[in-house]
Amino acid sequence: MMTDFLDADMLGAVAGFVSTLSFLPQVLKVWRTRSTRGISTGMYALYCFSLLLWGSYAWLIESWPLLVTEIATGLMTGYILVMSIKGFDDDD
Amino acid sequence: MMTDFLDADMLGAVAGFVSTLSFLPQVLKVWRTRSTRGISTGMYALYCFSLLLWGSYAWLIESWPLLVTEIATGLMTGYILVMSIKGFDDDD
Repeated sequence: MMTDFLDADMLGAVAGFVSTLSFLPQVLKVWRTRSTRGISTGMYALYCFSLLLWGSYAWLIESWPLLVTEIATGLMTGYILVMSIKGFDDDD
Repeated sequence: MMTDFLDADMLGAVAGFVSTLSFLPQVLKVWRTRSTRGISTGMYALYCFSLLLWGSYAWLIESWPLLVTEIATGLMTGYILVMSIKGFDDDD
């Protein structure tokens, strides 16, 4: 069975690391350019809310890779949301 | 136990729906403004890659809410990635 070959938790941890890491270039771009111009505030507000839900889901199913992912991602998306709300050189 | 009160799969489905929905405002903003100026291409490339990993993880643990989420999110983030690569009014 494929599961024997691939360890699901390891894959979950790698997936979590990559999805969390993916926000870093956006954080750095906002930090470097001091601009949130093209970024949708609505997206990051909804995304942060979904992370709260995903964190609860992870807690209920006791999936620690997922829980760690949501917390770390929340720190980054929270930064982008705050900067976007502050409206640095924004257009909406 | 709290699990009796909250059905994890239901919570996962709602979380999945909200996180997928969260990309809609960004898709609409790119569509409306024809600009991906503040958007990090690196973020969406990594994010799309992580969705492939999360999809495999969801398949392995047979979590269908998570799998449906990754596919739907992939369609939206894929659109933003393509637009960002095309560099509509972009600055990096």
